[in-house]
Amino acid sequence: MTTGRLMVIGGDAAGMSAASKVRRQKPEREIVVFERSPHTSYSACGMPYFIAGLIDSADKLVARSPEKFREKFNIDVRVQHEVLELDPTAQRVRVKDLISNNEAWEPYDQLLITTGAQAIFPQLEDSNADGIFSLSTLASGIKVYEFMDKHLPRKAVVVGGGYIGLEMAEALVRQGLQVSLIEKGEQVMGTLDPDIGQLVSEALREIGVTLYLHESLTGYEQSNGMVTGVVTDQRTIPADLVIVGLGTRPNTGLAKDAGILLGEKGSIRVNPRQQTSAPNIWAAGDCAESFHLVSRKPFHVALGTVANKQGTVAGTNLAGGYATFPGVVGTAVSKICKYEVARTGLMEREITGLGLQYKTATTKTKTRAGYYPGAGWIMVKLLAELGTGRLLGGQIVGLEGAAKRIDVLATALTAGMTVQQIVDLDLSYAPPFSPVWDPVQTAARQLLG
Amino acid sequence: MTTGRLMVIGGDAAGMSAASKVRRQKPEREIVVFERSPHTSYSACGMPYFIAGLIDSADKLVARSPEKFREKFNIDVRVQHEVLELDPTAQRVRVKDLISNNEAWEPYDQLLITTGAQAIFPQLEDSNADGIFSLSTLASGIKVYEFMDKHLPRKAVVVGGGYIGLEMAEALVRQGLQVSLIEKGEQVMGTLDPDIGQLVSEALREIGVTLYLHESLTGYEQSNGMVTGVVTDQRTIPADLVIVGLGTRPNTGLAKDAGILLGEKGSIRVNPRQQTSAPNIWAAGDCAESFHLVSRKPFHVALGTVANKQGTVAGTNLAGGYATFPGVVGTAVSKICKYEVARTGLMEREITGLGLQYKTATTKTKTRAGYYPGAGWIMVKLLAELGTGRLLGGQIVGLEGAAKRIDVLATALTAGMTVQQIVDLDLSYAPPFSPVWDPVQTAARQLLG
Repeated sequence: MTTGRLMVIGGDAAGMSAASKVRRQKPEREIVVFERSPHTSYSACGMPYFIAGLIDSADKLVARSPEKFREKFNIDVRVQHEVLELDPTAQRVRVKDLISNNEAWEPYDQLLITTGAQAIFPQLEDSNADGIFSLSTLASGIKVYEFMDKHLPRKAVVVGGGYIGLEMAEALVRQGLQVSLIEKGEQVMGTLDPDIGQLVSEALREIGVTLYLHESLTGYEQSNGMVTGVVTDQRTIPADLVIVGLGTRPNTGLAKDAGILLGEKGSIRVNPRQQTSAPNIWAAGDCAESFHLVSRKPFHVALGTVANKQGTVAGTNLAGGYATFPGVVGTAVSKICKYEVARTGLMEREITGLGLQYKTATTKTKTRAGYYPGAGWIMVKLLAELGTGRLLGGQIVGLEGAAKRIDVLATALTAGMTVQQIVDLDLSYAPPFSPVWDPVQTAARQLLG
Repeated sequence: MTTGRLMVIGGDAAGMSAASKVRRQKPEREIVVFERSPHTSYSACGMPYFIAGLIDSADKLVARSPEKFREKFNIDVRVQHEVLELDPTAQRVRVKDLISNNEAWEPYDQLLITTGAQAIFPQLEDSNADGIFSLSTLASGIKVYEFMDKHLPRKAVVVGGGYIGLEMAEALVRQGLQVSLIEKGEQVMGTLDPDIGQLVSEALREIGVTLYLHESLTGYEQSNGMVTGVVTDQRTIPADLVIVGLGTRPNTGLAKDAGILLGEKGSIRVNPRQQTSAPNIWAAGDCAESFHLVSRKPFHVALGTVANKQGTVAGTNLAGGYATFPGVVGTAVSKICKYEVARTGLMEREITGLGLQYKTATTKTKTRAGYYPGAGWIMVKLLAELGTGRLLGGQIVGLEGAAKRIDVLATALTAGMTVQQIVDLDLSYAPPFSPVWDPVQTAARQLLG
C-alpha cells in the first residue's frame, strides 16, 4: 500500500527528506505535511551562528520554504498546523489550524511521524519571566535574536554545558555580552570523558566565559516580568538574558497517547525500515530511536544528519522501495571559537556500563607537519577493547583542522576496525595537511604500546 | 637470528623507523646504518615549502640528526658512506667513506635495504648545465635554495606536472619567479582522472603559471655552463632555473646486482613481513614493493607514510617480533596555493585495466554549511564497481577543508565498503565543518541515483 494518502507530521529535516524522496519516486501521490511552526527544512544547528551575527538573516537557515515545497514539489505543506491527536485505528489525526483555530480530522493511508525533539525547560520559580529562552525550532532562535535587538542585554547566563550551550556561549561573547555558564557536571560536554572535557572547559574560560561547574539551576529572579538573575544551589548570578541549553527530549506525546511503543529516552521504537509498532505508521528523525553500532544497543540521538538519513530511508520505504538505516556510532563535532571538539563511539563510562574492559591512549601532536606554518596542537584520545584491540571510541580537541579527523574514526568504528588496522590505514599526507603519521594514527600507535 | 649485527643501508624514514624500533626492543643489539648523504630522517616532502620561504631553515626538515641517533639511541649512523656492493652469500657489503674515499667490506647478520628512490633525470643535450635540478634528497633541495640565493633566477621552468612539480611551481611563484610548467600529458596530475586533473590545471593557471600541456622535454640550451632555456618538441622556453619533476624510480641497483628479486617498477619484491627473496635481507620504503588493497595487485609508491609503516613493520620483525604490512590504497594529497587536491583508490584507466566495470558521479558542494562564513567549493568524484556498488576510488579538488576528507574514502576502501555504506556513515556535522550531508556522502548519494 504505497499509493494512498501519505501524511507527515513535522516539516523539518526527517519529514521533508522523506516527503521529497516519495515525491521523486511517486510523482502523482498525495502528500500532506502538517508543521506546527511557520518554517520547513531549516538548520536548527545554524541558530547560534545567526545569533552570533555570523549569518545576516534567519532566512539563510531555511533550505526550502513551504512555498517551494508546494509549488515545485507539489507537496501539500500546511505550516502553523498542529496535530493534537492520533487515532491509529481509524487512520486519522485531529489537526488544529493555529491561525484560524479551526480543528478537523484528517485521514491518512500511511503516516510518518517526524515530530522532532523539544528543548528541556524545567518549570521553576519565575521561569516564565521574559528573557529566558530555550532553543529548538527556528522560531525560538528568532525570538532570542529579536529580544537581543530590542532589549540589548549585557549579562547572559547559559544553563547547561552541552553543544548548544557552548555554541550559544560563544555566540553571546561574540555579540559583546558578559557570559556565565552553569553546568551541574564536573566539566562541560558530558559526552566527552572528563580529561578531554576539561580541555573544553579551559577553552571556554579562555574566551572569557565565567564557568560555574558542579552547580545546578534552582530558579530565576525577575523584576517587572523581566529576568534579572539565575539562582543556583550556590549563588545568584545577575542576568538579563538566559539561555536554557539542557538538551532535548523526543517529542512523542502524540505517539505515546496513541499506544505506539516507545524506546530509549522516550523515543519512538522503530525497526531498521523506520516502521513503528502500529500498522502504517512510520517514524524518523529526532523523535525516533536509533541503533548504536558499537554498543549494539538501541540509542537515541537528536541530530540533523541522522534525521536526514532516517527520513530518506523512511521515504524510500513509503514509496514502495526497500531501505534500512543501520544505525549510528555517536559522532558529534563542535567549534568553540578557535577550538574544535569532536567525539565518536563510546566514552569510558559507556564502555564500563557495557561490562567491557578497555585501554586508552591520549596523544598531543600537530595538525600539520611541525615545520609547516599554521601547525596547531591536536589531542586525540582513543579507546579500544582489551584483548581484541577493537576500536571503541575516540575524542579530539584541538585547533583548526583537528575535528574533522573524527570521521576516520567514525568510519573505522563502523567497519569494526582494530587499533592495528587504524595504524595501517593509508591516510593522506602532505606537510600542509598532516604530520607523516596522522594524529589519529599516532594515538593508535601509542595505544598499541 | 635477531641478535647479531643489524645493518641498514639508507638513513631516511624507512631505515631509521626500523632501526629505532629494533633499538627499543633490543637495547644491546649492534645496529649500523650507512647513509650516502649528510642527513638522516628528513622530510623530503617539505622541500618545496623550504624553497618557497615558508620554512626558514632546512634544519627544520630534519626530524632526527645522525648525532642524535648515535648519542641518544646508540645507533651507529655513518653518513656520507655509500654502499657500493652487496654480497649476500658472504653476508657483507662494500662501503666507501665519501670523505676519506676509503673502502672496506662490512659484515652483517641481518640486512635491511632502505635505499629509497632517485629522481628521474633524463640525460639530454646540455642537461649538465648549471641551474638544472631534480629533487629527491634533502641535499638536492638545499642545492636549489643555494643556487637561487646566489644567482637570483627570474624565469623558471618546471618539467613534469606531478605532485613535486606542482608544489615546486607554487614555491617558485611565491618567490616571485615567472614560472612555466611543461607536461607531456593532457593535464597535470596524471594520477587524477582527466576531468578532475583539468581543474588542477586551471588552478595552476590562476596562480600565474604558464602551462604547456602535450609537450615533451627534448633538451636544454646553455651559455657559459649556465642553463638559458628548455627545449620541448614545440618550442624553446627561456629559463635560468629548471626543476625536473618527472617522478622517481626505486633505487635498487645494489639489490638487483646481488640477484634479489625485483617487482613493480623495479622495486624490491617483499612479502608482507618486508622480507626479500634473499636470506636475512629485508627491504622497506621507497625502494620496496607494496600491495594495492583495491586492485589486489603488487604496487609501488614512494611516500613517507608508507616508508614509515614498512620501516616499523621491518623493525618489529628484525627485533624478533611479528608484524605485517597489509598494503596501500593509493592515497595522496597536495596543496596548490589555495587549492587542495586529493585522491585515493583506483582511477578510471586503472579500473578499466583490471577489466572491471564502474559507474561514477561527481558533485560540487561546499566545505561548510552554505550559510556559514568561509564555505568554499569542493568537488568530489567517486568511482564504484557496477553491480556490487563497492567503492573503487575517489578524487577531491576544492578550497580549504576539502582534501583531508579523502581519508574517509581511504578508510572505506580499506574496509571494502559499498557506496550505500558510505551514505550510511555517521560522519560529523556542525555548520562550521560541513553541510548536513558531508560532501563525500553527497557524491555517494548521487552515485546511488
